[in-house]
Amino acid sequence: MKKIYLGAAYYPEMWRENELETDIARCKKLSINCLRVGEFAWGKMEPKEDEFEFEWLIRVVDQLYENGISTVMCTPTATPPRWLLNQYPETRMMMHDLIRADVSSRCHTCKTSSVMREKNRIIVTEMAKVFAGHKGIVGWQIDNEIYPYSEGCYCEQCKSAFRRYLKEKFGSIEKLNRAWGMTRWSLSYDTFEAIEPPYPGQWKHPSLRKAWRDFHYGQIKTYVEEQAEILHGYGCENVGTDMMAHNSMSYYDINEKLDVVQYNHYDAAERLPCNAFSYDFLRSVKDRPFWVMETQVGWNGSEYAEGGYRPVGNCYANTWLPMAKGAEMNLYWLFRTHPNGHELGHGALFSPAGRAYRVSEEVQKAAKEFEKCGEFLTNTRIRSKIALHYSSTAHNSYDCAPLLKGFDYRETLIQKYYAAFRHYNVDVIDTAHSLEGYEVVISPFLSTADENGLKERMLEWIKKGGTWIAGPMTDIMDANVMRYTEAPYSFLEELAGVYVKYQKPVANEIFTAQWTNDGECAVGMCYDAYECNEGTRSLARYVGGEFSPLSVITEKKVGKGKVILTGSVISHGDLLRLINKPPIAEASKNVILTERTGEECGIIAVETQNQRGYLVLDNEYTDLITGRIFSGKTDIYPYEVLVLRK
Amino acid sequence: MKKIYLGAAYYPEMWRENELETDIARCKKLSINCLRVGEFAWGKMEPKEDEFEFEWLIRVVDQLYENGISTVMCTPTATPPRWLLNQYPETRMMMHDLIRADVSSRCHTCKTSSVMREKNRIIVTEMAKVFAGHKGIVGWQIDNEIYPYSEGCYCEQCKSAFRRYLKEKFGSIEKLNRAWGMTRWSLSYDTFEAIEPPYPGQWKHPSLRKAWRDFHYGQIKTYVEEQAEILHGYGCENVGTDMMAHNSMSYYDINEKLDVVQYNHYDAAERLPCNAFSYDFLRSVKDRPFWVMETQVGWNGSEYAEGGYRPVGNCYANTWLPMAKGAEMNLYWLFRTHPNGHELGHGALFSPAGRAYRVSEEVQKAAKEFEKCGEFLTNTRIRSKIALHYSSTAHNSYDCAPLLKGFDYRETLIQKYYAAFRHYNVDVIDTAHSLEGYEVVISPFLSTADENGLKERMLEWIKKGGTWIAGPMTDIMDANVMRYTEAPYSFLEELAGVYVKYQKPVANEIFTAQWTNDGECAVGMCYDAYECNEGTRSLARYVGGEFSPLSVITEKKVGKGKVILTGSVISHGDLLRLINKPPIAEASKNVILTERTGEECGIIAVETQNQRGYLVLDNEYTDLITGRIFSGKTDIYPYEVLVLRK
Amino acid sequence: MKKIYLGAAYYPEMWRENELETDIARCKKLSINCLRVGEFAWGKMEPKEDEFEFEWLIRVVDQLYENGISTVMCTPTATPPRWLLNQYPETRMMMHDLIRADVSSRCHTCKTSSVMREKNRIIVTEMAKVFAGHKGIVGWQIDNEIYPYSEGCYCEQCKSAFRRYLKEKFGSIEKLNRAWGMTRWSLSYDTFEAIEPPYPGQWKHPSLRKAWRDFHYGQIKTYVEEQAEILHGYGCENVGTDMMAHNSMSYYDINEKLDVVQYNHYDAAERLPCNAFSYDFLRSVKDRPFWVMETQVGWNGSEYAEGGYRPVGNCYANTWLPMAKGAEMNLYWLFRTHPNGHELGHGALFSPAGRAYRVSEEVQKAAKEFEKCGEFLTNTRIRSKIALHYSSTAHNSYDCAPLLKGFDYRETLIQKYYAAFRHYNVDVIDTAHSLEGYEVVISPFLSTADENGLKERMLEWIKKGGTWIAGPMTDIMDANVMRYTEAPYSFLEELAGVYVKYQKPVANEIFTAQWTNDGECAVGMCYDAYECNEGTRSLARYVGGEFSPLSVITEKKVGKGKVILTGSVISHGDLLRLINKPPIAEASKNVILTERTGEECGIIAVETQNQRGYLVLDNEYTDLITGRIFSGKTDIYPYEVLVLRK
Repeated sequence: MKKIYLGAAYYPEMWRENELETDIARCKKLSINCLRVGEFAWGKMEPKEDEFEFEWLIRVVDQLYENGISTVMCTPTATPPRWLLNQYPETRMMMHDLIRADVSSRCHTCKTSSVMREKNRIIVTEMAKVFAGHKGIVGWQIDNEIYPYSEGCYCEQCKSAFRRYLKEKFGSIEKLNRAWGMTRWSLSYDTFEAIEPPYPGQWKHPSLRKAWRDFHYGQIKTYVEEQAEILHGYGCENVGTDMMAHNSMSYYDINEKLDVVQYNHYDAAERLPCNAFSYDFLRSVKDRPFWVMETQVGWNGSEYAEGGYRPVGNCYANTWLPMAKGAEMNLYWLFRTHPNGHELGHGALFSPAGRAYRVSEEVQKAAKEFEKCGEFLTNTRIRSKIALHYSSTAHNSYDCAPLLKGFDYRETLIQKYYAAFRHYNVDVIDTAHSLEGYEVVISPFLSTADENGLKERMLEWIKKGGTWIAGPMTDIMDANVMRYTEAPYSFLEELAGVYVKYQKPVANEIFTAQWTNDGECAVGMCYDAYECNEGTRSLARYVGGEFSPLSVITEKKVGKGKVILTGSVISHGDLLRLINKPPIAEASKNVILTERTGEECGIIAVETQNQRGYLVLDNEYTDLITGRIFSGKTDIYPYEVLVLRK
Repeated sequence: MKKIYLGAAYYPEMWRENELETDIARCKKLSINCLRVGEFAWGKMEPKEDEFEFEWLIRVVDQLYENGISTVMCTPTATPPRWLLNQYPETRMMMHDLIRADVSSRCHTCKTSSVMREKNRIIVTEMAKVFAGHKGIVGWQIDNEIYPYSEGCYCEQCKSAFRRYLKEKFGSIEKLNRAWGMTRWSLSYDTFEAIEPPYPGQWKHPSLRKAWRDFHYGQIKTYVEEQAEILHGYGCENVGTDMMAHNSMSYYDINEKLDVVQYNHYDAAERLPCNAFSYDFLRSVKDRPFWVMETQVGWNGSEYAEGGYRPVGNCYANTWLPMAKGAEMNLYWLFRTHPNGHELGHGALFSPAGRAYRVSEEVQKAAKEFEKCGEFLTNTRIRSKIALHYSSTAHNSYDCAPLLKGFDYRETLIQKYYAAFRHYNVDVIDTAHSLEGYEVVISPFLSTADENGLKERMLEWIKKGGTWIAGPMTDIMDANVMRYTEAPYSFLEELAGVYVKYQKPVANEIFTAQWTNDGECAVGMCYDAYECNEGTRSLARYVGGEFSPLSVITEKKVGKGKVILTGSVISHGDLLRLINKPPIAEASKNVILTERTGEECGIIAVETQNQRGYLVLDNEYTDLITGRIFSGKTDIYPYEVLVLRK
Repeated sequence: MKKIYLGAAYYPEMWRENELETDIARCKKLSINCLRVGEFAWGKMEPKEDEFEFEWLIRVVDQLYENGISTVMCTPTATPPRWLLNQYPETRMMMHDLIRADVSSRCHTCKTSSVMREKNRIIVTEMAKVFAGHKGIVGWQIDNEIYPYSEGCYCEQCKSAFRRYLKEKFGSIEKLNRAWGMTRWSLSYDTFEAIEPPYPGQWKHPSLRKAWRDFHYGQIKTYVEEQAEILHGYGCENVGTDMMAHNSMSYYDINEKLDVVQYNHYDAAERLPCNAFSYDFLRSVKDRPFWVMETQVGWNGSEYAEGGYRPVGNCYANTWLPMAKGAEMNLYWLFRTHPNGHELGHGALFSPAGRAYRVSEEVQKAAKEFEKCGEFLTNTRIRSKIALHYSSTAHNSYDCAPLLKGFDYRETLIQKYYAAFRHYNVDVIDTAHSLEGYEVVISPFLSTADENGLKERMLEWIKKGGTWIAGPMTDIMDANVMRYTEAPYSFLEELAGVYVKYQKPVANEIFTAQWTNDGECAVGMCYDAYECNEGTRSLARYVGGEFSPLSVITEKKVGKGKVILTGSVISHGDLLRLINKPPIAEASKNVILTERTGEECGIIAVETQNQRGYLVLDNEYTDLITGRIFSGKTDIYPYEVLVLRK
């Protein structure tokens, strides 16, 4: 789209009509160029059944467009009107206590309900008719943060659909009983009809829980795709759906038939460096820039302000980081704080009284810089030689059977692996992603390594020269959360040329290890101990404890490439030692570097920890923000951004 | 009444009849002169429907009276008999899960139920017939700690009454939708009949929650008044209802048609100084001494003893403090520990075996001192020139939308404001209270400043010379929990002559400020930053941070008085600096001073922190307890009380 | 039985048939000689109603037997098949929310249901027919960890049975009302039919709660005995039921008609010394060795590993300790980690892949040592002169009315009393146990001292020369959780010759005491203060605080014996000073000593804290494990075991 969008979520239905003019002036003052509207406004669009009123919204889109402000239009299906939810109670989720959700919130519809689906199609069709082709509309958002809230809907329609889903998946009830281990505790089902969803009070059954999630994700996929199909049918472009930061509901699946990956986040100030993980993931889902649809400004808050103090400059850096990493849109939530009702404690660009908060000055600064740097950002892209696997299947399997106490798959990937690569271009990818172009792939805790043909693709890629760093706890179970029983891994033991002698999943500080050549090798979280087959080299081994002298890291050549198996979590330094590649540039840890190439090339540096830092440039660069020329060792200020064109 | 009452809650229905004689001897040994009876004894008064038995209770009141012990009689409506609750299930609250409360507790009746009301009227009428005019009865307590427990009753009668209440309040559903902001999330109601109460699992809607509370408080008011009317009709005097320490259910409203303010508290030993806040509040509700109906003795406890160790002397000081501050009755809970059933772990004057606990010696000491000081206490009263606003509306608004994380309105008033005034007479008042006689009124966090005609009365009072210290977060929303949208305040910005440039509600330790003349001005909790209009003086301003150099405290002359606006919470020292008035006397912080005037005059000093302290007297005083003469610097011992007549 | 059994829980129904052969080889490699089977396999035994299949299980028992491996056979009544639970929903517990338990777990049957009982009788009869007399079967386990989960079943059958139970116990409703104190709060029942069980959300009524528990324990007793009767009828031997470590459901009652005491535990590594308490208790229930049916190996875990790291040797010492203390069987849970379903995170001897975990080496070591020491273990037994009361009634009474905040009766006995006796033989006994043979009996927190004729037996035993150390909080209430009202104790005040002047149950660090002769006497948790009658000696008194100079420990001679009354919890040293008896041998605190006598005699020493320690032998001993000769001061290594035959 060759343009950078900056703006906010806007709820004109909340305010008097004549406020629009003032709001446009407010936008202009901040130099923001995009507002998202319509999100929860179904009640105002269809005040009575089949009576539609869009004039008020057309007027908004028109006036914004006339003033150079683009609109993202939302389908309002996360909040059907009260009359609809009351007249058709089956449209409301049935909670696990078998009581329908109250009409009091949002995102509480049944995703299976045929009535809900029909009503959705009608309102989306009406909207598409009215708004398709409007030049002011730059894209569409379907629903809002769609997800199976409260463990999903337990209504009879959902239960039936769940049973059909399982029947299709397993074919026979005997196969399901076997896959889920139902013989124990005499839990075997006689028929698919005997299957009930997992209830929160129940002793958790991993396979059942994961299947229930997978089912709901499937329903959501069609719920969203149904709307996308209508919008596409009317020629609407840039259709997506905004989701929170996790890959529990697979970004690859949900975005399969959508146009643009949309994403929301509300992390605390100190989480800023971690957000880069999400951007490196989002960028890789589709071969085009992603959109940040919501991020906080000032402070979070529902009944009260929370999320901690955000130092001066944090909003600015939080705005720049996604752009550095491959976004083309950043919208804040929200334009103006609600004066009453839910979420009246949330920060915004403007106060309930319509006064700009202090943070708006940072927004204004970023907006003006995007005007300067827009061309560089849209003419360049990010290429990575390193990939880190972040698997939706593993996410859900470890949620349902963590195996390690308090284990959080995503957070472990971020802190223990991703954080080592602040000065590298890295793609964070799911197993369906192509391996083309990567030299190193890192796959820790990839519980199921044999899906989407990954085993075969991986082998081929290694033979051509790839280095696969696998483990710990990789390739240990199938996608039904069933551990392998012939060997600890399904294929990795053979591929890596080892024999797994011992295993211990109890987190502790007992074990220590050493590199074969020199120095301590920190280990943690879980412990596999290997004997090496012929042709396999021990890179590091346990010392002193009960697993000494077995190996903890091994390496085996396979074709032109190699497999490095790690039996424990190692340190950032040890990980970089295994990778053995130079960074984009030398820099202090607080600075995140991204290399951009294409028609132009250069480096974007973002300071993320509100500290001073530095980077060392091997060439002469021009900072597109200030116009200054940099080379050699360069200081960087708290939350400063440098856009360094070579 | 010109007498001081000291005693305990007594449950003769629990014990063999011949125990009464022993219990009277126990009272005499401790010199206590009052027992409260009947509270939960409905089952013994009306063992079968419409069969009343009062002989046992008449005997108790008679014998107490003959032995010089007064009785407070209670209506037993907090515990209808099991047969009643089982025969008329609609008398039991419907919990939010739509299941009726079990018959297992107390205070679990529906306050709307017409059957419950009718049954109440019958039992209260029967009691009034029997006990009205009995010379042994010094007063009446209605029900027990009445309150909408468990978020209130959700039965159909309550729901209908709630809808009627809202219809009457708002007139049209459109007005309600607007006042509550229901357009967002498509939540607009089409009719009042569509309104449901707030359920605990729901995303909290501030306006709906507050309305639900206000409704229940209204029901309780009439529930209590109905009983009071009957009692008054039979000539019963000194009718009240005992409530816990909070002004959530307005003390002004509930006591409107009652005679005496009754109050219960069970705070830990270290909370003793804070209790003075309650007394300064209770005293001001009605123009007469209040009654402490329940306070702990020894330790609290239901299944087990808790509330921490109470050092020797704590009970003594806890008994004296309300008397110093304007009470005329103090009753302990309870006379003798229950041997079984609920609350068998609670402390008392006597053990289950009937033996006096060690703490009874302190009660005896206080009882004897009250005999000595009774005349002074009843001949003098407390006059304050300073008032602190403690608003029921603000209490509930901030409960429903705290805006600040973890914000507790009452506790903030106590710790950040009231605690500065241990050596001053201060009235703690709600907005309905007259401003007459005050020189300074302090109104922090008074969310709604425009109710009960306060705006107009305040202005008039200022013009006549009053000093109003307002803010922070004062005058920010209406009583429906709707923020003002034309300006941050409804009238305070104009009155104080400022422009609110920035606001930040995120608690932090980032901001610092300075007095215009000299020295640091500590700020905290929330931050408004002001530009001063002409004629407005900046008293203190932000330094160093993002709000520098805007003002945080401003002053504007209005008529003969002035408005001081504070944009943040300041320190006790800074607050006293703004007040600029001399204390009753110089004293150490652990000593609470109360000045008493009237036919006689003097100072009562109570040590509240179990430490040594001092006070400095500018005159010669006689301690009515010991008869000693004091002047100049006077030591005070841990938990000592001095009753210093000038 | 003259043999030591070591083995594991085995679930052959989970695995392919041909895995059995491999599993037998696995057993042989570890030298284990016993597997427990059948526990949850009802579904495989009766796949359709009244169609029984036992061939698969006969094959398992046969083959194990042929390979020298004994079997413990379980009745599978903790997990009826899904078809049964669905066809007869009344077999499933009704939870307190009046919803039937889901079919998703175990131990969720109604213990009162006549259908459940009938179905149990059928399956147990079928099993008995098939397996009674099989030479491979060494004993039977009924059900699994049977207990009233989730506060017990609330179905109508259970409620009716509860009311009948109360009617039989109290005779008239007036007596029950009095015993439970129902007059207060107007809670008196008119009839037994009005009684409802205690619901979790209710304000807890101690007497009602305890009665509800007692009732369920009674149901469980007959539920188990019904199965035992069938098994005994077919000649099955060594029948028991495995229970967790608590004496809440009385071990004496439940085992009355069973043959062998069976026990499970899963404590963390650092709890090892505490487990000895359980063994000293279990040994005393019946006059024969007990069985440990389940204990962890490696790590605990349902969804994830937990319970902390177990250092090398911990499993070994955990295996030896029960044998030292009087067990003859130890089974681990479990043989091989489940690959899927519930509890897939739990440790085992073998991994899901069938590989031996490192810990199996410790099992193998213990197994081989039991072969060497089996004769000594089976030819000797443990005789104690000291007994510590651990009462089921007290356990439940203090659970229902702890009186002290956070009070845990069992843990207090272990930490404050039992832990003083690591170098002594001590029996831990309930009140029904004979006093014969003991010289000292210690009875702290024995809330009800007058049950099972204990008062009279105690008095007789004291007169013959016994020393009774009683208190604190002993003899304070009856078994209905009703405190005594004539005096603080029912008979102890008179027996001990004291007058209880003061009492204080508030835990604190205020009180201090001193021995009459010399030195500080540490006191804690609760405080009774005594005046001594003539003939009673004060051994220690309060100093400095509000109870000074009253006594805290007193002694009175009664016949040839004496009663020592302790008004507070004292230190281990002070306790040993009161006991005044020599230990088995001098040793470091980490070493637990057990003296064994009989045909042979000697001492078993177990190091329990993973530290070095020592013991001092007054004679020459042969260690049966190593054959080494020891005398004098002997070092002991972390987790080392010495079996020292004199």
